[in-house]
Amino acid sequence: MAARLGEFDRIARFLKPLAKGLEGALALADDAGLIRLPGAPSLVATTDAMVEGVHYLPDADPFRLARKLLRVNLSDLAAMGAAPLAYLLTTALPARIADDWLERFAAGLARDQARYGIALLGGDSVSTEGPVVLSVTALGRAEGDRVLRRSGARPGDAIFVTGTLGDGALGLKAARGELAGLAEAHIAALAARYHLPTPRVALGRRLVGLASAAIDVSDGLPGDLGHICRASGVAARVQAASVPLSDAARAAVAHDPALLQTALAGGDDYELLFTLPPDRRAALAELAGDLDLQVTEIGVIGEGEGLAVLDAEGRAVPGLKGWSHF
Amino acid sequence: MAARLGEFDRIARFLKPLAKGLEGALALADDAGLIRLPGAPSLVATTDAMVEGVHYLPDADPFRLARKLLRVNLSDLAAMGAAPLAYLLTTALPARIADDWLERFAAGLARDQARYGIALLGGDSVSTEGPVVLSVTALGRAEGDRVLRRSGARPGDAIFVTGTLGDGALGLKAARGELAGLAEAHIAALAARYHLPTPRVALGRRLVGLASAAIDVSDGLPGDLGHICRASGVAARVQAASVPLSDAARAAVAHDPALLQTALAGGDDYELLFTLPPDRRAALAELAGDLDLQVTEIGVIGEGEGLAVLDAEGRAVPGLKGWSHF
Repeated sequence: MAARLGEFDRIARFLKPLAKGLEGALALADDAGLIRLPGAPSLVATTDAMVEGVHYLPDADPFRLARKLLRVNLSDLAAMGAAPLAYLLTTALPARIADDWLERFAAGLARDQARYGIALLGGDSVSTEGPVVLSVTALGRAEGDRVLRRSGARPGDAIFVTGTLGDGALGLKAARGELAGLAEAHIAALAARYHLPTPRVALGRRLVGLASAAIDVSDGLPGDLGHICRASGVAARVQAASVPLSDAARAAVAHDPALLQTALAGGDDYELLFTLPPDRRAALAELAGDLDLQVTEIGVIGEGEGLAVLDAEGRAVPGLKGWSHF
Repeated sequence: MAARLGEFDRIARFLKPLAKGLEGALALADDAGLIRLPGAPSLVATTDAMVEGVHYLPDADPFRLARKLLRVNLSDLAAMGAAPLAYLLTTALPARIADDWLERFAAGLARDQARYGIALLGGDSVSTEGPVVLSVTALGRAEGDRVLRRSGARPGDAIFVTGTLGDGALGLKAARGELAGLAEAHIAALAARYHLPTPRVALGRRLVGLASAAIDVSDGLPGDLGHICRASGVAARVQAASVPLSDAARAAVAHDPALLQTALAGGDDYELLFTLPPDRRAALAELAGDLDLQVTEIGVIGEGEGLAVLDAEGRAVPGLKGWSHF
């Protein structure tokens, strides 16, 4: 039988180290965590959960899984333009989850805590007879009400996206072995992007006051741009040919053209999708240069409602039509 | 088959109303919730989860369940002396959970939101093939570092508890039908206390600056007083006869003397257990009178380590010995 510590020992061994250095976490020894905010800042809070068998396969590497769990939450903070402060973790674990799993999981959290300057503030560990359920609540800070919203897009604004899109959805197929025939390097690159997205935290913070609306791409480009359109009361037109694809995604589409739809509409990219008054393009270019980050203009906001993803001839891209009416 | 809305509709219908009136919840339409803090307050965050089959029976009333979920989190805020601000909710629900369940659940949250002046700030809804998992992260505010901690108890301090103890653990037995022979009214009273604890939010806030240490009774008196003793580096002596029991709990113990141990050591009471410099007794009495709340002195803090629960003859209460060594 696998080694299994008691709950107190598990917390002391695996979780307490994650709260080290964060004074307000009170060493996880009190009933709640305290965040001291000098001046008059705002606190931004978000929560995202992952369920075994739904969001990841039972044999997923817990080190990588922990990092993804934290990163999808950080991506939400980024989409709000908030600076990461701390997070709370709830784990519902069945008895079969052994210490080594939790240790790897905590190590993954520690790795990304260091990378993103965030620490564990508190949490709850409960048992379950069902699949693993992992939930993080991330807290970030903003200055007053200076945050990014979905609702600020205006007709004439340009639409931008960071990095490349489609890698998340294609990466899921790659991880499932559904891209047979594609070069191994491309399969590995796509799967890696699915397993470990890169939240655009630094850019998100600096888009405050520059972007008119923002969201992170978790549902997919049409779905998430649709959120911006509805919240802002505007329409959007995207040029499919402008949507940035990675070399691996391009190779996948060349291999099977039907995958273009997956690339354009798939989710799980955790890139930032945002709108910008056209006269701020130069400021954005400078910022992107500062951060050494690719940002690509993919379309324009218009009046009315609806979303169109158009090919080079101005026709709706096949398979994306369903997304254009909402 | 039971009625079942799509996820978006479920959120719009059941959860959005819970965010109404809380400006920073942004109508649950953004990636995260924003809390604006005027001046320089601190934010207190805590999280507690409940799993079907572990923390409650599958046929539990979702209205009552929601209120308990919120209340156990509010109890943690109370134990820190924080004022409730907002909360985030994560639900992992299997397909068999129908809309009426979720509607009742949301109604329970709404009821206690109004009662405790807290609102939903955000959350995540995921699916699971296992049991229901419910998780709340509650956020509260405090002034600077003026919070209640477990670590401030000093030799000579008096030990107090709010309300009555033992009802939670006896109530679980009552709800399970294990108290056959006890009067129906007592069974109902105990079960009600188990199903719906009363977090001592108002007292908690006003104990800041008065109590030297505090915790809420969730593990049981010996366990939770043990937490205070370890955190404070002190010992504690409790007079079992001083521990306040409800009429129903007294009746249960009279019916079966072995239940005294359950009453004294059981958990799930969510009363506040706190220590106080002896010269502050009068101030506490005045405060308790203000709040019309029963507080009872049950023992004293001493030097050294360990916890003793003593009967009228000064002997350790049978069955609690195991708790006295830690």
